[in-house]
Formats: sequence, C-alpha cells, structure tokens
Amino acid sequence: MAKLYFRYGAMNSGKSTGLLQAAYNYEERGQRVLLAKPRIDTKGATQIESRLGMTREVDFLLGPDDDPRALLAEARGDTGAGVACLLVDEAQFLTAEQVDQLFRVAVDDDIPVLAYGIRNDFLTHAFPGSARLLAIAHTLEELKTICRCGRKAVFNGRRIGDDFVFDGEQVAIDGAGDELVTTYESLCGHCYLEESGGRLG
Amino acid sequence: MAKLYFRYGAMNSGKSTGLLQAAYNYEERGQRVLLAKPRIDTKGATQIESRLGMTREVDFLLGPDDDPRALLAEARGDTGAGVACLLVDEAQFLTAEQVDQLFRVAVDDDIPVLAYGIRNDFLTHAFPGSARLLAIAHTLEELKTICRCGRKAVFNGRRIGDDFVFDGEQVAIDGAGDELVTTYESLCGHCYLEESGGRLG
Amino acid sequence: MAKLYFRYGAMNSGKSTGLLQAAYNYEERGQRVLLAKPRIDTKGATQIESRLGMTREVDFLLGPDDDPRALLAEARGDTGAGVACLLVDEAQFLTAEQVDQLFRVAVDDDIPVLAYGIRNDFLTHAFPGSARLLAIAHTLEELKTICRCGRKAVFNGRRIGDDFVFDGEQVAIDGAGDELVTTYESLCGHCYLEESGGRLG
Amino acid sequence: MAKLYFRYGAMNSGKSTGLLQAAYNYEERGQRVLLAKPRIDTKGATQIESRLGMTREVDFLLGPDDDPRALLAEARGDTGAGVACLLVDEAQFLTAEQVDQLFRVAVDDDIPVLAYGIRNDFLTHAFPGSARLLAIAHTLEELKTICRCGRKAVFNGRRIGDDFVFDGEQVAIDGAGDELVTTYESLCGHCYLEESGGRLG
Repeated sequence: MAKLYFRYGAMNSGKSTGLLQAAYNYEERGQRVLLAKPRIDTKGATQIESRLGMTREVDFLLGPDDDPRALLAEARGDTGAGVACLLVDEAQFLTAEQVDQLFRVAVDDDIPVLAYGIRNDFLTHAFPGSARLLAIAHTLEELKTICRCGRKAVFNGRRIGDDFVFDGEQVAIDGAGDELVTTYESLCGHCYLEESGGRLG
Repeated sequence: MAKLYFRYGAMNSGKSTGLLQAAYNYEERGQRVLLAKPRIDTKGATQIESRLGMTREVDFLLGPDDDPRALLAEARGDTGAGVACLLVDEAQFLTAEQVDQLFRVAVDDDIPVLAYGIRNDFLTHAFPGSARLLAIAHTLEELKTICRCGRKAVFNGRRIGDDFVFDGEQVAIDGAGDELVTTYESLCGHCYLEESGGRLG
Repeated sequence: MAKLYFRYGAMNSGKSTGLLQAAYNYEERGQRVLLAKPRIDTKGATQIESRLGMTREVDFLLGPDDDPRALLAEARGDTGAGVACLLVDEAQFLTAEQVDQLFRVAVDDDIPVLAYGIRNDFLTHAFPGSARLLAIAHTLEELKTICRCGRKAVFNGRRIGDDFVFDGEQVAIDGAGDELVTTYESLCGHCYLEESGGRLG
Repeated sequence: MAKLYFRYGAMNSGKSTGLLQAAYNYEERGQRVLLAKPRIDTKGATQIESRLGMTREVDFLLGPDDDPRALLAEARGDTGAGVACLLVDEAQFLTAEQVDQLFRVAVDDDIPVLAYGIRNDFLTHAFPGSARLLAIAHTLEELKTICRCGRKAVFNGRRIGDDFVFDGEQVAIDGAGDELVTTYESLCGHCYLEESGGRLG
C-alpha cells in the first residue's frame, strides 16, 4: 500500500530541490510522476523553483476548492498509463480537505504522495495544510536547515524591511506586496524567542 | 541547547514503556528526572502505567490551567539540584499553552523535555497537545505499532461494545464511563477507512 | 514485502525492553512472533532480560553455525500457522551469513525481522553481526541513551574494576569471567576520546 | 558539540544534490563551508556533480594517505576565519583512518561533518569508508530512491553492457574503463536476489 509522506522543514531547507530530485529519480527509472502545488503561491506561478536554479512546470495547480484526486485523474488522462508518484510543493497552503484527498490517493488509489512544505508560520502556528499533514501523514520526515547561530532552524521569522514583525496575515509571500520588502529568516527556537521578546504563537 | 521531543504513536505503541525506560536510563547514570502527565487521564490517577506491567508515580500532575514550568521549578525544590530531563506522558491532553511552556523549559531553562503522546483522536483529528507539539517540537519521533492487518497503525478507532463509532466526544477514556465498554483499536489508513465507510475527520 | 530492521544503540539503551514491547504489541493483536538470540550471550542463557525487570524465553538460540531460516521453519512447526515477526536480540553477535539469512527471511519468506543490537565494541569497531546489518538492513533505527555528560552515547567503554581498558578480546560479557568485574559504560565521542587518550579503533 | 553525519543511499539517490543544497544553505546564511572528496573518483575530477546539472569545485581532494583534518586546516588558511561545516562527497571511498579523522574534526574541532556516500557495493558489501561511518557516525540518515519495481532501493547492481555481473573489483567507476560500458542500477532486495540468483555478498 502506498503512503502519504510529509517532508517538512523551515524556509530555505531545500524542499523544492528535494522534490525535483525525487521527480528526477522516478523518471530516470522510466516511471511517470505528476507535480502539483496550491494556486495561492504566486512566486513561480505554474513553476516549482529551486533556489539552486532549477525550475519545472507543475502538471496542475490546486485552487482552494479543487479536489486533488479529481485533478490527478484528469492529468493522468485517458491513456490508463500509471502514475508512480504525486509530488506536491508548498503543501502548507493546502486545505485540510485536500490533504484528506491526498491520503485517499495513497491508500485507496495506491499512488505514493510526497508532500513538501513549511511546518509553521511567522507566529509559530502550523499552516492549515501542515496541521492536517502532521496529524495524518503516514511518515513525517524533516528537511533540516540552520539558523544564523548554527543550530537547527525550526521557525520562520518575518521581516518587513530590516525589522522582525509579529503581527499580520499568515500569508505574505516573500518579496511581494509591500512597500517595504517582506522577507523570511529561518530561526532556531532560541533566536526566535530573542527576536520576539519571548512571544510564542 | 536542550530540545523538546515529541515521541508520538498510535495507542498501544509502547509510549509509557518508552518513557519509563528513558527515565531508567537517566537515573542509572546518576541523573535526576521528573515525570509529569495531564490530570485529565483518569486511568492511572497519579501513575504512569505500562501495559508490560511497570508503574511509576509522577512527580506532578498538570491541570488544564497549570504551568508546567512553574510546577517543574516547584518539584525541583530548593536544593538547586539539577534536573537532567522532564518526561511527560499522555502529552496529547496538554493545552497549546502548556506545550509552549515545555518549549521554553527546553530552550530557556536548557532542560530536555521528552513528551510522549497519541497523535490523533478516533476521528483522525490531532489532539490539542499533539497539534501544538507537531507544530513546534524540535524533533518528531514515531513509535510504531501494527494494525490487525500487519501494516503500520496511524489511527485509533473507537469501539463501544463491538461496534466502531464515529460520533462522540474527543476524550472517552478506554474502559470507563459507558454502560457498554469503550475501547480503542490502532488501525492503518486502509482498515480505518473500511470501518468508517470512507470517512476521514 | 517484509523488511529487515536493525535497531541499534549503545549498551543500556533499552534494546531488550523495545524487543519485548514489540513482541507484546504483535501478540496483543493476535499475531504470533518468534524470539531468538545468539548462543554466545551467556547472560540470560535462554532468556531475553530487560533491565526494567521483564524476562522472556527465546524460541530458539543461534549457535555460530546455525541457520536462522532453518530454525525459524522448525520453530514454526507443522501447523502452518503464520509467523508475523521474528525478533532477534543481541544481534551484534550474529555472523554475516546469519544476517544474510535474516535478510532472506524478510525478502523471500515475507516475514519482518526486527534485529536489536549494539553497534560497536569497546574499541569502536563494529561487531560482525552489526557490520553486516548496517551494510544491508532495509531500515536502520537508533535507540538512544545518554553519556554521563548528558550527550548522546555512541560508544561502549569497557572497565575492569575501576579502570577503562583498551586491550582485550572483543567479547567479554559484563559481570563475568574476570577476577575484577568487567563492566561497560555508554559514552559519547568526547568522553570516549578523553578516556582513551585520543585512541579510536 | 558538532557531529559526524553519514547520509547514505543507493546510487542515484540524490546525494550530490543534497550536498550542494546543504552548502548553499550554509552560505546563504553567511557561513563558510569546505567541500572535499576522495581522489579515487575520476568522474568529475575536482568537481562535485549533481545529475540535476549543478557542479561545484571541491576545496580539496583526499588521496588515500591524506589526512582530512590536516587538509581542512590548510584549506581553512591563516585568516582564522571559521568553518561552519565540512561536506564530503563519495565518502564510501574514504579509508577507515580518514573517517576517524572526520570524527575528530567533529568532536575535537567542533566542526560538523556531513559525509555523503553509497552504503554497499555491487556484491552488497559495505565500502571501507561506509563501513567505518556506519560504525561510528553520530547520526545515520538515509537518502531514498526507488528500484525499478517501485520499492525502496538498498543495493547497487553492476552491469557490463546489458548483463548484470557478480564478479570483479569493488571499484569500477560507471561509464569508464571497459570495452563494454559499466553501469549501475539501484535495486531493492527482491530484484537484486532475482538478478543474482539468490547470491548475497
């Protein structure tokens, strides 16, 4: 039986690179994969972009009301050709219902699903997609990156201009939509609490 | 810097045994540990009980409004003797605020915290304590057990008498409080969906 | 397809407890397990003993020339009743050939094998069974314990009386066979190198 | 205290990509890394090459008699500038002594070492560097890839031309040195045993 995997990590932990490598590994073996991501991510429009410079088109985008299982069937086409794996980037932006459908893709349709995403937002709360993936995914695997202090990063601080901020909407895509540029910095617990003045959540 | 660990698993995956073994390992090295659990668990009152037959008194119980960091300081006493580790059983019943305090015990007080708990309830939703632990714990480690079919269990089905039920309160301690006895069965995704008629969450 | 798991750890990391808990979990589900260990271990004769106080008889002992696959078939008996899992304690003392047979039990006979053992000896060399398990097991899982300094233990220092020693046979069962008692202490890399004067291997 | 990590996987599991991503993550944080690999690998000469198309020069090559700790000190230079991480590719080709020195770099010099490598050769034996890393590394992390059948690959079959071969030197770099081209295929235990006629090791 196939499984739903959640490969989570702080920002800039190499999630998109990992996804593109996994896709490459399958295709090198002559196996077909499909790539998807939520529509909310406006960074790459229809592309998955790795900071190392690789990009690739997704096979389908998921709007908040879309059913990934139906879109998978559609993308798969009439040929009946098998799909060896579904790879989902930015999975933190999925809805809980979409995660449930990914679980059914794995369990009922026997297609492994690799979902890559950020675990928690700039206030340390789990994103909706991540919360559901953390609750039900068959396997949780961490992709690690470091804080500026060298410890493992577990949080994602938000900056507007130079300053860390601890108010605002959950989603503010980095580099977009503000007069001052919004950026994120992966932080360990110690450095996050230092910047937030002890605030957590 | 110390870490907050969440060792999660389906029911009957050996969580209490693992906790008691970890406590034993520390004490064998001459190091002091403290044990705690939420008050909501009425099974063992003030004890941590392993299905293998071992039991041990907790050092403090956590009511829903209690601050684990304050109770830890109190239990630690005036001696100034160090605490090498705080071990928390049934961590799924903690509040989000209590988990945040456990995170501060690890990061600010430099005492490792090992929290053991169930990931999701009989309807596949994360428990409050588990949801927060999954969102912020430094390390997530799975304790595995099997479904009746031999696959890894990820869910916890609830039975009243012989029948699986999919309505009711989140917390119904097994073996307690009903005319018909309430029990739980660890299930894989496939067997859970079969029993629930496809319902998830 | 079943897998061969190697659950390794320093001495006193709770390996036998973990094995007995895994056996309990299977049997609680009505599934049959078989327990085995190499004959070289004279500590418990035909028993698996946990430091927490639990003991259990093995189903068969493995002499250096015994084939675990044949002994498994024999222990299984004529009934044709399935075996859900083979659990092997002290797996560091297996021969490479015996590990290969355990691999075939998993892959060819489709019976999961959980092998528990110590990774390296008092001179930091892998034991024969561990070396082969580390090379081919499907899944490597670490059971953690701590050094006296609080760090994770990775080595096993040998003492005769009060002194650490760095010469001698690979196997000297603790508490046996010397005028002065032989004991072991789980150590982190730092403390090991301190005791050994920088010697490694 | 820093650690020695062994990130192992079958061929084509994305080891070099993972290494280059880890280097990128450090440097993005303004931290300096050094890259090294054994000289035996003639594929990329002084480069680390990812199948996804990225390449990067190593800071130093390790001949069989070279001491990685001395070369690290040399590459580090007189500036006294810190090195946040040493990244080693093709670590299976290290000698046991070189692995011991990497352990000392982590423990004594407090510089984390990430060693990436293949676990076992075409006959399922551990490579010398892998054997020592599996025996002493602080943390073992698997990089997964799939077999042609969809299962996880654990072995590396060697082909000369179209045929799998089970005799020959341990090291025969793929695509080099034979009239017929030597290639490798990552295989699960089941497919390996099928190709080898049951031979293991």
